[in-house]
Amino acid sequence: MITARSIDEARAALAAARTHGAKIGFVPTMGFLHEGHLSLIDEARALGATYIAVSIFVNPLQFGPAEDFEKYPRDEVRDAELLKERGVDLLFLPAVAEMYPAGASTVVRAGAVAAPLEGERRPGHFDGVATVVMKLFNIVQPDIAAFGRKDAQQCAVIAAMVCDLDVPVQLLFGETIRDDDGLAKSSRNTYLSAEDRRRAPALHRALRAGEEALRHGIDDVASIELLMRKMAAETDGVDVDYLALVDPETFRAPIDMHRELLLAGAVRIGKTRLIDNIVVPRRELP
Amino acid sequence: MITARSIDEARAALAAARTHGAKIGFVPTMGFLHEGHLSLIDEARALGATYIAVSIFVNPLQFGPAEDFEKYPRDEVRDAELLKERGVDLLFLPAVAEMYPAGASTVVRAGAVAAPLEGERRPGHFDGVATVVMKLFNIVQPDIAAFGRKDAQQCAVIAAMVCDLDVPVQLLFGETIRDDDGLAKSSRNTYLSAEDRRRAPALHRALRAGEEALRHGIDDVASIELLMRKMAAETDGVDVDYLALVDPETFRAPIDMHRELLLAGAVRIGKTRLIDNIVVPRRELP
Repeated sequence: MITARSIDEARAALAAARTHGAKIGFVPTMGFLHEGHLSLIDEARALGATYIAVSIFVNPLQFGPAEDFEKYPRDEVRDAELLKERGVDLLFLPAVAEMYPAGASTVVRAGAVAAPLEGERRPGHFDGVATVVMKLFNIVQPDIAAFGRKDAQQCAVIAAMVCDLDVPVQLLFGETIRDDDGLAKSSRNTYLSAEDRRRAPALHRALRAGEEALRHGIDDVASIELLMRKMAAETDGVDVDYLALVDPETFRAPIDMHRELLLAGAVRIGKTRLIDNIVVPRRELP
Repeated sequence: MITARSIDEARAALAAARTHGAKIGFVPTMGFLHEGHLSLIDEARALGATYIAVSIFVNPLQFGPAEDFEKYPRDEVRDAELLKERGVDLLFLPAVAEMYPAGASTVVRAGAVAAPLEGERRPGHFDGVATVVMKLFNIVQPDIAAFGRKDAQQCAVIAAMVCDLDVPVQLLFGETIRDDDGLAKSSRNTYLSAEDRRRAPALHRALRAGEEALRHGIDDVASIELLMRKMAAETDGVDVDYLALVDPETFRAPIDMHRELLLAGAVRIGKTRLIDNIVVPRRELP
């Protein structure tokens, strides 16, 4: 595994791989890797990637001033070991000054899908995501790029960017990997105290309750959202940010309950903010 | 010459060229071609391009609501003939709906250099330019892309975008081509009545007066700008929008008069708005 800290080193390694006909799979991450990230490597390979590049970059542009940029968990040594074991070819590990030299000011402004839910609560977050992903795509020029579905709205923002700006890449959105009790794998789970960790599955349980209700034919958005809130409230110390039933294309209230739907939620448990979601496939008309 | 009206057709032609080892030179234009555009083809070849793609697309995103999008001059047949004569390989000629399908909303937001001068007078103009250029770069994936220096601030906006977003392309900024009386070639010159055409060189004369003053050691910004205004005022019917001495990196007042400088101007003559500029090389310290 080559470790590149500069854009030039990464480009040189990738150019060499391309010369040898490699099909490049790319997994951009913020590090502190878990099985959710690692499974994306396998999924990219299954889709035909023959050379895997992974980036680890905690992107300051996507954190708000009151958010956890400084304390976001980092462990380069362990991450590099995990990636090596998984057969990754290139680890791109740039410093902030390498990605954002002084004076850089051109940005990508995420599209309409970035406005609701996470976008409303984290102003500028998705512009920061879109900007760094565009930069990473331009550096790596991958054939396939993989993102985890746990960040469903991020996936939608990136899909819109790729479509709207004609970015020449195939996107792969990998399944959310969960602990046995349903908690979605997330680097931020490391923030949870033992007590908070026991509370954390309440988010997934609430979403599952919404899913069950939909399967049982309830198709009133307000009722389903209320049900999810009630379920979350059954666990002490779970502060709901939002629990919403939305159209997975717009991330706004669905206008057709018989298309694919998305149940998405964010909660705070102690000082930790967790998100999760469940896709509910298109149902047959009754 | 292949003429592609869809993104897919253009990509197919370019992929085939790339398979044969072509080095792709790209000249994005809004059509109604003149020698300024055509000279960029030759300059791209001189830099090593072996396959030339030219796009013609009057980009609605870079026109303000009160601007000349609708009446911007168009002549596809003549343009195609000129490009064919010049040995161009691919003409990409997309319709507006091909470039901006309904719902597209991700954009590139131009950097700080886009704010003064043209940016101040044409809000959103450079965001529209940056967005369409990013799309065209993603479609064409050129090795070299060429732009004319007549649009000096546009060149700076694109250079900043390429740098800030790590776009893998080599930029080429071609010299401004002028008529014998100094008027810079521009598709918009076609708007000028015979009388206005006689007035139009006043813009270049004003900039030249500023250049002369700099060469003679005058290094007070206000004096030079006043001198340029006086020169422009000698011609009736020339309404100065701005005549400015700026730093060519920031497009703001220079902080060091001994670095490279830029004299930039915009005037209205009748209903036609013309721009032009002169680069003044770094001078020796006295």
